[in-house]
Amino acid sequence: MSGHSKRARALVTHRPIDGKVNWKLENVTVPLIQDDELLIRVVAAGVCHTDVAFSLRLDAFGVFPRVLGHEGAGYVEKIGPAVTIAKVGDPVLLSFASCTACMNCTGGHPAYCPQMPALNYISEANTFYGESGEGYEGKYFGQSSFASMTACKESSVVNVAGIVKNEDELKKFAPLGCGFQTGAGAVTNIAQAGKEDVVVILGLGGVGLAALMAANLSGCRLIIGVDRVEEKLEMAKGLGASVVINTSDPTLDLVQAIKSLTDGYGASITIETTGNMELIKSGVDFTALRGQIVFIGIPPADAELNVHLVNLIQSGKCLRGCIEGDSVPREYIPQMIQWNREGKFPLDGIIKYYKAEDWEQALADMKSGVTTKPVLTF
Amino acid sequence: MSGHSKRARALVTHRPIDGKVNWKLENVTVPLIQDDELLIRVVAAGVCHTDVAFSLRLDAFGVFPRVLGHEGAGYVEKIGPAVTIAKVGDPVLLSFASCTACMNCTGGHPAYCPQMPALNYISEANTFYGESGEGYEGKYFGQSSFASMTACKESSVVNVAGIVKNEDELKKFAPLGCGFQTGAGAVTNIAQAGKEDVVVILGLGGVGLAALMAANLSGCRLIIGVDRVEEKLEMAKGLGASVVINTSDPTLDLVQAIKSLTDGYGASITIETTGNMELIKSGVDFTALRGQIVFIGIPPADAELNVHLVNLIQSGKCLRGCIEGDSVPREYIPQMIQWNREGKFPLDGIIKYYKAEDWEQALADMKSGVTTKPVLTF
Repeated sequence: MSGHSKRARALVTHRPIDGKVNWKLENVTVPLIQDDELLIRVVAAGVCHTDVAFSLRLDAFGVFPRVLGHEGAGYVEKIGPAVTIAKVGDPVLLSFASCTACMNCTGGHPAYCPQMPALNYISEANTFYGESGEGYEGKYFGQSSFASMTACKESSVVNVAGIVKNEDELKKFAPLGCGFQTGAGAVTNIAQAGKEDVVVILGLGGVGLAALMAANLSGCRLIIGVDRVEEKLEMAKGLGASVVINTSDPTLDLVQAIKSLTDGYGASITIETTGNMELIKSGVDFTALRGQIVFIGIPPADAELNVHLVNLIQSGKCLRGCIEGDSVPREYIPQMIQWNREGKFPLDGIIKYYKAEDWEQALADMKSGVTTKPVLTF
Repeated sequence: MSGHSKRARALVTHRPIDGKVNWKLENVTVPLIQDDELLIRVVAAGVCHTDVAFSLRLDAFGVFPRVLGHEGAGYVEKIGPAVTIAKVGDPVLLSFASCTACMNCTGGHPAYCPQMPALNYISEANTFYGESGEGYEGKYFGQSSFASMTACKESSVVNVAGIVKNEDELKKFAPLGCGFQTGAGAVTNIAQAGKEDVVVILGLGGVGLAALMAANLSGCRLIIGVDRVEEKLEMAKGLGASVVINTSDPTLDLVQAIKSLTDGYGASITIETTGNMELIKSGVDFTALRGQIVFIGIPPADAELNVHLVNLIQSGKCLRGCIEGDSVPREYIPQMIQWNREGKFPLDGIIKYYKAEDWEQALADMKSGVTTKPVLTF
């Protein structure tokens, strides 16, 4: 243990009521940090659909009360004696946690650390204390950054000292720690898109738009954005979509639409960010011979896709799952920042800031599509 | 049209009787070749499970009578006026046909030519005539090489003049045109196996053993061969398998066996050549986080694999179909011959020659596992 406990404000996730997210901004205490932890003064944290999903789960992953948030940005207040990644005062962006020792972590694929679920989705007890003294769970993604001050695992920390210039930038880059690297990494790390590729992006939320920007900066020859919200389609056009398709049109045959845009070949790369089973099935169909479909969006927990094996073999299609864009955050986040500085990965129209106490508005705007990526400030 | 019709012997596939292959060696006439065809004097043709499967199908792909055979080797007797790939007298190996003009053909992926089914599985009428004057279907894989003389599409021809030294070698290399490039290409072209990979090969027939040899020459750090026939497992050991597993053991838990051989990680590459649904399901399970399973073996025509999507996403696994090893035969067949000369791709223990009239023995030996790859000589 190191240092003293700290007072903070945290958005605490309580058990859902009537299937609705039940967050409360509360005064909390952050206990002493462990040897491998850093105390972070959080300035901003992106809101991701995963936070909403975990707020509503009633299975083993639905742990209440706890503090969520996994796209944190802040400054180091204190470090444990075993910490080497950053020093007090450094600006940091927070990403997922990994064991750092296994074959996948040392081999450049920490998102596939076998301890990924344990270190990110399972919580540690008593990482915050409420005013009544009740212990709250935390260390979600090693960070639980929906709090003005939090104890963060070293493996979640990306030190951006010397890279990020000021606090405004730090806030802007908060969502790079999960959603944006998930979408962009799926295109550059997993699909390894290139100039010959025809890329279809299903769903144009934060993840989908990041994928779109990555396809654009990879020079893909045709980029097709698909969503049901006109504002998102307009935004996609501004970010490099060659064509957009609005699925709210009841007469649309999406498979035919993609085929006719591609001389009958279909998409060489399909990035699926919606979790919608109907779109998923269409995506498998309109993916080209030898094409790949990358699944990112989370469908219902028990959803199964029935794959006709002879068709899969004959078509040479590739179905693959992907989390966190198979990224090494300490390399990929600085890469995205560099792209941003070069104008290839703009974030200004995508992000909107909300004070932590305005979280209900943030969630409502995300749901309606008014805001692609809400960022809470503390 | 070019030249004169030729008399030949052909193994003619008639409608199956009682679900059994019904081949007959008959005297036939080969009509005049088309402008884009070569008349080939066939010296040998490998027998593949696909030939057996097409001999038993009663759907649209079950066309009788016709001449099958798609791993031919022979000498050019005559060429049509549009042919440039070879001249009279050249030794050739025959592979699958493709349109040569589409994006996949010109892009180095002819096995995913949209016309693949039409040019290979569908036949042309009257490409042979029986003694009674009845027309037999042919141009199966552009070649129908179960005949001492056949009219072959130019796109199926790999000219090996200057590469293959004599007729004995030509016979030996006959099976390179399909089965061996299918297995080896799955490992080198599709999975792109390397030194860090743990490769599991399900099924050790000709395709599986070719995959095994390719994994071995790629330097993969652990190669696990799986079959139910002890002789095949012994052969696999001689060809570079680090470990073999006999699935005929009723107490075997294959998933656990693979996991315990791999420190719990599983296979980074699984090559599935059996089409057996039980093995396929196990294969998906024992494939490692971020690992890939390549489906080659043909399961029942209506077989579906139920893929749990959340697991697929979290695991980052990659499920992909593959035919013909995604090979360009005119490049990959010479490559396999080169490996053979370097001792890295031995074929002698794998191939056994049978006179065309002994086809029943060849099929029986292939089924029992006594012979891995029968080659019929004409």
